[in-house]
Amino acid sequence: MEQQIAPLARLAEQFGALPGVGRKSAQRLAHAVITMEEGKAKAFAEAILSARETIRRCALCCDWTDSDICAICRSAKRDPATLCVVEDPRDVAAIERTHEFHGLYHVLHGVISPLNGIGPEDLTVKELLARLEGGALQEIIMATNPTVEGEATAIYLSRLLLPLGVRVSRLAYGVPVGADLEYADEVTLARALEGRRSM
Amino acid sequence: MEQQIAPLARLAEQFGALPGVGRKSAQRLAHAVITMEEGKAKAFAEAILSARETIRRCALCCDWTDSDICAICRSAKRDPATLCVVEDPRDVAAIERTHEFHGLYHVLHGVISPLNGIGPEDLTVKELLARLEGGALQEIIMATNPTVEGEATAIYLSRLLLPLGVRVSRLAYGVPVGADLEYADEVTLARALEGRRSM
Repeated sequence: MEQQIAPLARLAEQFGALPGVGRKSAQRLAHAVITMEEGKAKAFAEAILSARETIRRCALCCDWTDSDICAICRSAKRDPATLCVVEDPRDVAAIERTHEFHGLYHVLHGVISPLNGIGPEDLTVKELLARLEGGALQEIIMATNPTVEGEATAIYLSRLLLPLGVRVSRLAYGVPVGADLEYADEVTLARALEGRRSM
Repeated sequence: MEQQIAPLARLAEQFGALPGVGRKSAQRLAHAVITMEEGKAKAFAEAILSARETIRRCALCCDWTDSDICAICRSAKRDPATLCVVEDPRDVAAIERTHEFHGLYHVLHGVISPLNGIGPEDLTVKELLARLEGGALQEIIMATNPTVEGEATAIYLSRLLLPLGVRVSRLAYGVPVGADLEYADEVTLARALEGRRSM
């Protein structure tokens, strides 16, 4: 009769509202909170409030930040001539982990998805176009996901950007490093052949 | 450079400390909190605090409750002669969903696990023994998990309880309803054969 304990049911409901958390996982997480030390539960609640209150979009790249302009946009070490356009703030973190990209980012906060009613006006396209003013930008790398919607968004943006006299490129498609050719799907393999490079 | 945004990193760390939440899931959940409406984030934080503060163990069965004695132990409709011993409060919820059990519960809050340094004194064994005083109890059903540790705990408890003149039973082992025999493991299948019933 767990459902009768209102605070527990409410907490499980809150966890269940998070993306990718099912009913059983929500119950498990709610139970975990109950068995936490009291200080830890407080720290958890405070972390939620503090994150929600202090984190907003960077005024330039739209990535999450706790100041007006994020650390990457503020950095003098980054190359302002190259801009990498990604769907999600987590993609910025993924690319940063490669230590291979030294330009700036632009976070779209989504992809164009007519089925879900998401059009260019729901993304940070206006903010992206604003970044071309000033003329420092030379190349824009489309690093949206290799999905139908990511691809469509990259094509849409490239059509907007190319007439503005900037170079637009797209992440290479190919076989993932360390993977087994046998298990690569045919589309990926075809793209890897198509994009082959001389050695 | 996501890691540089302290409130976001702190929140991801909090999620990551929950059982079964890995680094990537923790990041995903933290990002979900940031994009919540502000009211929802507040409700989430409050649900954590409220659950942690108001929920404690029932003085009788040790299940979670927000009063001194839980709703099941208080209910006049439950049969006080039968007691079902489970590892975890979630197991109470699972058995309640069957609508087949009308007795009372006792929650151990764990199993005996020498490898993890958990002995009987870490479980609610003392509270279980206290429930035999009064003499209303006639049968105790061991509903610990069908694992090595759950089995060992059931055997340990039955040895404690049998000399006290109470009947002790164990959940039936067998093939799960709706499953395919072909995929049942041999131990389960052997137990199902052993426990076969005439039709």
